[in-house]
Amino acid sequence: MRLDPEGYLGRWQDLNATATIPHSMRMLEESGTLDNLRRVVGRADGDFTGYHFADSDVHKLLEAIGWEIARTGTRDFDEFLAATVALLEEVQDDDGYLDSHFQGTGGPGEPRERFADLRWGHELYCAGHMIQAAVALSRAGRGDLLVIARRTADLLVRRAAERGVPDVDGHPEAETALVELYRHTGEQAYLDLAEQMIEARGRGGLGPDRLGPHYFQDHAPVRDSTEATGHAVRQLYLDAGVTDLYTERGDRTLLEAMVGQWETAHHEKMYVTGAMGSRHFDESFGDAYELPPDRAYAETCASIADVQWSWRMLLVDRDARYADAMERALHNSIRSSLSQDGTAFFYSNPLHLRAGHREEENAPSRRTPWYRCACCPPNIARLVASLAEYVATSSADTLSVHLYGAARIDVPAHLGTGHLVVRTAYPQDGDVHVVLDGELRPGTHLALRVPAWARDWTLTVDGTPSDAVRGPDGYVTVDAGFGEVRLVLPMPVDLVVAHPRVDAVRGCVAITRGPVVYCLEQADHEDVPVEDLRLRLDGPLDLGEPAPGGLPTVRAAGAIAAPADGPGALYTLVGQDAATPLLDDVTVTAVPYADWGNRETGPMRVWVPVVHPGSTA
Amino acid sequence: MRLDPEGYLGRWQDLNATATIPHSMRMLEESGTLDNLRRVVGRADGDFTGYHFADSDVHKLLEAIGWEIARTGTRDFDEFLAATVALLEEVQDDDGYLDSHFQGTGGPGEPRERFADLRWGHELYCAGHMIQAAVALSRAGRGDLLVIARRTADLLVRRAAERGVPDVDGHPEAETALVELYRHTGEQAYLDLAEQMIEARGRGGLGPDRLGPHYFQDHAPVRDSTEATGHAVRQLYLDAGVTDLYTERGDRTLLEAMVGQWETAHHEKMYVTGAMGSRHFDESFGDAYELPPDRAYAETCASIADVQWSWRMLLVDRDARYADAMERALHNSIRSSLSQDGTAFFYSNPLHLRAGHREEENAPSRRTPWYRCACCPPNIARLVASLAEYVATSSADTLSVHLYGAARIDVPAHLGTGHLVVRTAYPQDGDVHVVLDGELRPGTHLALRVPAWARDWTLTVDGTPSDAVRGPDGYVTVDAGFGEVRLVLPMPVDLVVAHPRVDAVRGCVAITRGPVVYCLEQADHEDVPVEDLRLRLDGPLDLGEPAPGGLPTVRAAGAIAAPADGPGALYTLVGQDAATPLLDDVTVTAVPYADWGNRETGPMRVWVPVVHPGSTA
Repeated sequence: MRLDPEGYLGRWQDLNATATIPHSMRMLEESGTLDNLRRVVGRADGDFTGYHFADSDVHKLLEAIGWEIARTGTRDFDEFLAATVALLEEVQDDDGYLDSHFQGTGGPGEPRERFADLRWGHELYCAGHMIQAAVALSRAGRGDLLVIARRTADLLVRRAAERGVPDVDGHPEAETALVELYRHTGEQAYLDLAEQMIEARGRGGLGPDRLGPHYFQDHAPVRDSTEATGHAVRQLYLDAGVTDLYTERGDRTLLEAMVGQWETAHHEKMYVTGAMGSRHFDESFGDAYELPPDRAYAETCASIADVQWSWRMLLVDRDARYADAMERALHNSIRSSLSQDGTAFFYSNPLHLRAGHREEENAPSRRTPWYRCACCPPNIARLVASLAEYVATSSADTLSVHLYGAARIDVPAHLGTGHLVVRTAYPQDGDVHVVLDGELRPGTHLALRVPAWARDWTLTVDGTPSDAVRGPDGYVTVDAGFGEVRLVLPMPVDLVVAHPRVDAVRGCVAITRGPVVYCLEQADHEDVPVEDLRLRLDGPLDLGEPAPGGLPTVRAAGAIAAPADGPGALYTLVGQDAATPLLDDVTVTAVPYADWGNRETGPMRVWVPVVHPGSTA
Repeated sequence: MRLDPEGYLGRWQDLNATATIPHSMRMLEESGTLDNLRRVVGRADGDFTGYHFADSDVHKLLEAIGWEIARTGTRDFDEFLAATVALLEEVQDDDGYLDSHFQGTGGPGEPRERFADLRWGHELYCAGHMIQAAVALSRAGRGDLLVIARRTADLLVRRAAERGVPDVDGHPEAETALVELYRHTGEQAYLDLAEQMIEARGRGGLGPDRLGPHYFQDHAPVRDSTEATGHAVRQLYLDAGVTDLYTERGDRTLLEAMVGQWETAHHEKMYVTGAMGSRHFDESFGDAYELPPDRAYAETCASIADVQWSWRMLLVDRDARYADAMERALHNSIRSSLSQDGTAFFYSNPLHLRAGHREEENAPSRRTPWYRCACCPPNIARLVASLAEYVATSSADTLSVHLYGAARIDVPAHLGTGHLVVRTAYPQDGDVHVVLDGELRPGTHLALRVPAWARDWTLTVDGTPSDAVRGPDGYVTVDAGFGEVRLVLPMPVDLVVAHPRVDAVRGCVAITRGPVVYCLEQADHEDVPVEDLRLRLDGPLDLGEPAPGGLPTVRAAGAIAAPADGPGALYTLVGQDAATPLLDDVTVTAVPYADWGNRETGPMRVWVPVVHPGSTA
């Protein structure tokens, strides 16, 4: 499968290859992250810099390079790749251990005892990312890192065997990595270890911590943990691993827990942008419906993890809801985390920025080139480089297309020959042409996802309107024999409201169009504070000029509220709050949330208060 | 001044004396906080327990005991007092240093170098609390601790002189304490040191920290810092100290900054309960209007600090807004932090608790007997023991009454003889009788605060209606010559809305009555989830049975919403969200927020969605 470089997703992949990956290579150097490894072998001086799990940023970028080589065969990164893999090989101990912080030279704050602080140490987390990088590179024909990663994995297997219990990391990640390593190598011990880790989790083994056991998903065994909770990235990476384990071993009690996890995460704890994790305090999921737009922590890595996990759920059970969630996150919270030039990043992705916002370390008001905790940038790089893998799947008799973008989808040999050419500007519009360049065996089906947001849609097969229905799984099916299929998903501009228990956005609407969520930015409303804009529910919603990312802007009918301030204005008696009359009508401009913050920094909001039927705002 | 033990505030003081203080004494023992001191002198084993600033909890309780002895002359605490002061004396080093963590025996995590980590060390913070305790005890005739505290204060003075710069603590508190020590002792050096600390602050001297300089109020000199920001308790304690310095030195540029601080804090960043500090992440003020009810951190100590600071502002400028703020915090966020039996505490005081709420260390769903960071419980104890001091003040010609409660207010000698007897069940009702038992000199005035919430009020002087007007400062004045004054502040049940920029409570109202804020609790609505209750704006609002605290409950007309859940219910198209029809009418019971959580733990909310003019909720 290959995304067309002229398409929306393909352009993003090219930006990733030409900007995000090279930028990340530079930042790993400038931030001292590579020096952390070099100092272990005496090739750099100074103290360890960054968080103690900084090695993982190197691994994630190597994984991105692996996907990128597989995608285009590029040699652009060969020098960096060779040097970095050689460095890792040099740093690795004879027993397979590799973690520059724990191998460190004893500088300030460096713990030295290995595997002694599994709750916070992140040793297995880093190992997991190295394993994923190694598999991606190996699949691209670069097998050096796999040798190194297997030495580390083998160390973990030996430790579990010798001790009778597996190491369980405070930050899940090794679980899904080990299953992938098993799939790639066929070595059963890796799958067994992943299973041991998953079975051992949630039994308090990580010990007491002031953040409580939920933070580490150590509060309940995975089968009993049917609510997404605690640190969002940890929960979602764990869920990916548990779903992988189900896929390999088929224990349905695991799947049942995962369905509960998925439904609470997506039906009660997901922002309209697809982001997850509302609490800054511990980067965690909040309570059900606790989804404040302004204090959305909404870490980029959580959205990436959700794409990876929802994909695994989709592989288990082809239900469009999983792919709907993936595209929601991809086109909104993930795309928004990256600047238009591909070299600056949000870590936290709020849905509302007030004037005079006071920033925090991981929550700046504009994208920055790197972070001391730099987990997100290389995570974007590895996801985007691998995007084509999420486009389609095949089963025994069906080729299913899940994500829409201009692409070429190879027909697997058991279903036919050649490939499908997908032509679309999606998500700029919802017109999707699928042209068969080859042949499908009789009895083969093509299934196309009809997103839940698509109310009216039409399917044409070889120019003839089809009466195919959307199945209960959200897919529409065409039997082999066609030459060309056209799925039209009309994208009117919609106004969306949240469930009434999402208290923080009561009385507000969000503008959406297809999978794309919009926001208002101060840059488009020079004379009126964004905070004072109101939307009319009964006004026209028109498409405006395209934003620089290519998606259209939206123009909507609104009004300007004029709230009072000063003494007594904060709390007033009902009926005496007429201090907020509506002044003039105004045309409001909304831009894709994915594009926000690429101009002058200023207030932004996704959820916009509506004009009440009365005349006050 | 003395609060009547039969009155609302007097009963609270008795509860404090008979329950909160003895309980806190026990908890200081059980928690190991006293042992932290004993181990310095070899009289206890084990590691330091609790946070490194735990000494301050001892000091705050000693201060409470000082106020309590002054109030009632009690000897109940003599044994504890003598033993604890003797312990402090024994622990204190010859140079005056006293901080059990830094003097510690080198156990785990104990830093040993004194004054080396001013940003996080809390050494001056602890010293400040010891100084305040010493002054309170000295005023009650127990001078032992003052000798000890002055040795510590003298050490700080010497260090500043020797080094040419004062120590500036990451946590303000010493500033206001040193001014008080100057007032009590007349020793100018203490005032000078407080001034030096305040002048040195806000210039980055605390050094870089991942929480940023705002957290420590180190981002701007105090005169340039006109917005309440950063860690709420730190900001508010600092403001108390700066206001004290203005009071003593008269530099109006300090006062101007304090007015800016006060107005941003109270006009943009105050919860309707009087609580402050919305962010859990760093216990800080949020942006203007960032006041989420569910994630209100709303630390008890911040409300206490606000009472102390607003009192100082009131002393500078008799404006009812300062006393209004004090009573709002006192009767709501502070009273709510304490259980009805006086022995359990909230640290965080949210305005909304959802079903299935996941707790955090300082934010449990029910009050707990103590905290690892136990700053709040003894802070309540010292505030409540000192409450009578906030009731009234006198100037050259006026006796002003600020807080209403049954009380006896001594007439100062320069204004007359005898005392005023205040008879009132306030805040159960707003009927305030002031009877003069003595004589006021001719030309003397009695000023009574008319709270901003009081729309219609009447004043009767010796039975005759008065035509006195509420002055621009919010006080009504009666000239000497009266025998009895009756101020009636009618307390209808009100519905309050928040400023439209307080996005989190859009479409909601809060029920208030006089200074008392109400909430809905699950315990009163067994059959209907609190989350689904709606209030009708046009229904009757009646008083119901008194709550156990003595304040009436409120019964209001409401309706039950029936939101959908499950797939697709989280975000729906406008007009298609009719999944939340109103079912039945219901009578809603509201209880004083101060009393919530004294029954079975369950959902609670202060801000209640209103029934829209249409028929859906």
